[in-house]
Amino acid sequence: MTDALDNAPLLELEVSEWLNHEGLTPEDLRDKVVLIEVFQMLCPGCVNHSIPQAVKIHRKVDDSQLQVIGLHSVFEHHEVMTPQALKVFLDEFGVKFPVAVDKPRDGQRIPSTMKKYRLEGTPSTILVDRKGRIRQVQFGQMDDFVLGLLIGSLLSEQD
Amino acid sequence: MTDALDNAPLLELEVSEWLNHEGLTPEDLRDKVVLIEVFQMLCPGCVNHSIPQAVKIHRKVDDSQLQVIGLHSVFEHHEVMTPQALKVFLDEFGVKFPVAVDKPRDGQRIPSTMKKYRLEGTPSTILVDRKGRIRQVQFGQMDDFVLGLLIGSLLSEQD
Amino acid sequence: MTDALDNAPLLELEVSEWLNHEGLTPEDLRDKVVLIEVFQMLCPGCVNHSIPQAVKIHRKVDDSQLQVIGLHSVFEHHEVMTPQALKVFLDEFGVKFPVAVDKPRDGQRIPSTMKKYRLEGTPSTILVDRKGRIRQVQFGQMDDFVLGLLIGSLLSEQD
Amino acid sequence: MTDALDNAPLLELEVSEWLNHEGLTPEDLRDKVVLIEVFQMLCPGCVNHSIPQAVKIHRKVDDSQLQVIGLHSVFEHHEVMTPQALKVFLDEFGVKFPVAVDKPRDGQRIPSTMKKYRLEGTPSTILVDRKGRIRQVQFGQMDDFVLGLLIGSLLSEQD
Repeated sequence: MTDALDNAPLLELEVSEWLNHEGLTPEDLRDKVVLIEVFQMLCPGCVNHSIPQAVKIHRKVDDSQLQVIGLHSVFEHHEVMTPQALKVFLDEFGVKFPVAVDKPRDGQRIPSTMKKYRLEGTPSTILVDRKGRIRQVQFGQMDDFVLGLLIGSLLSEQD
Repeated sequence: MTDALDNAPLLELEVSEWLNHEGLTPEDLRDKVVLIEVFQMLCPGCVNHSIPQAVKIHRKVDDSQLQVIGLHSVFEHHEVMTPQALKVFLDEFGVKFPVAVDKPRDGQRIPSTMKKYRLEGTPSTILVDRKGRIRQVQFGQMDDFVLGLLIGSLLSEQD
Repeated sequence: MTDALDNAPLLELEVSEWLNHEGLTPEDLRDKVVLIEVFQMLCPGCVNHSIPQAVKIHRKVDDSQLQVIGLHSVFEHHEVMTPQALKVFLDEFGVKFPVAVDKPRDGQRIPSTMKKYRLEGTPSTILVDRKGRIRQVQFGQMDDFVLGLLIGSLLSEQD
Repeated sequence: MTDALDNAPLLELEVSEWLNHEGLTPEDLRDKVVLIEVFQMLCPGCVNHSIPQAVKIHRKVDDSQLQVIGLHSVFEHHEVMTPQALKVFLDEFGVKFPVAVDKPRDGQRIPSTMKKYRLEGTPSTILVDRKGRIRQVQFGQMDDFVLGLLIGSLLSEQD
């Protein structure tokens, strides 16, 4: 592996609450590729594109190889995009994969993980390799083929 | 006009609140065709199909001929699909046409207009002719061409 | 009817051959709205959009009200877009409505009907009212809703 | 590598003519992943899905890593799907990658490569790894994400 990869940041989500799961641990992610779909439940690009895309990917690739995670990073209209509303959203939109609520920061608009990784907005996509290293952070809707290409590449990487 | 049409029910919405408008009156609708998109803000078929369709129609047909109206008929998860959340939804999804909140009924799940017209769920589409008569009530997503055909037909009807 | 409409040109196709039909006559079109899809069998916008759209419309609206017609107006690569190749195309793409071959002009690239109505290319759409008058000629792909709106409007016109 | 892969058939196309290229040699494909899109120019699933998909992939992935090839395997209507007509098709549909004409067999409907690999029809997709081994043969339209996943996986395989 290259030095660049040795310096790649490791994934560490800051989470106030998990939905659809009791809480993923680093142990749960060991040796898996991880796809993190960062979204807000009232963001049109998320609801019309990225969430249906993540739901499809979750159905098509085995959980033992690829862990799909939603990260609800609310940076506006916090008063209506509550965890309670999010629960309803996940149920209505058929989201079965684990969803983490990005940890709010007292008196701040931007939540913790979003700030830490300097995410530009929603939707954003974070790809993590089998070693836990963040390999790609992308803002905006991603093409199905391109996302497949990136995930396929990470899945077959060898040390 | 046929007797059947003479017996067609007239449109009368029961509304607790208007958004994007101070409140449409029968006078505002006089001699116009009216398209009512009945939706819930967390209903996938509404968010991914019917609301974008209504937004497109609202852009393409002049308000003086066709009045597009949203009717937010919440029959589940009332606690998170509040008027406050709806305001954010309309803003985020670029909905500029008037939206009526279907009047809740004390202790009942189904709101007033939904019950009155026996709507089966969301999305539903109601088409009203220039005389104020309800000419079509349809449950489920509608094809763009078919909806265009129905609206075009009502627009060019003569007495 | 307005003077403008009194001056609208009447539909007169110049045809060298009919496929899927023994040959539509003015009598066959009497009192019907007519949708003419002008195409070439190797034009991407026709094959990927307008022909599937016409096939859908032909399935959805009754032949006694709306006559869908294809017009194969070849203005380039005449040597491979022959009537023989067109027959295979119609069969493979499930086109069941009558298709007219636009009459070639000796030594000229542009065929007769295309020249007569000054069509700019393919796909083009021609809409004819129940009186046989050409009411709309449009170059390029048409939106499903807009096309529905125009057809619905012509269908319910009264004298 | 597993024994199964040691036994995987090697790619050997039987070609009567190349378009868009003077003729790819095994040398040209050395160490590349190869995507072969098997099609007929008048097959709707090819024209509306697989060819546009291959054009997109060809634009998105570098030729030095992934070689996209079209294989025109005509098994019906040979008289109109000639190399001459194919040339026009490729030009009109913006196909820039090399296209091989599957070698006809005297008096037989099915051409040589199609028979050799027992392809069931068009569209079909053949994926070849960096060692020249055929790793996947799939009949029918393929999902963008799934195809990306397979190609990405082959691209990052190590010996």
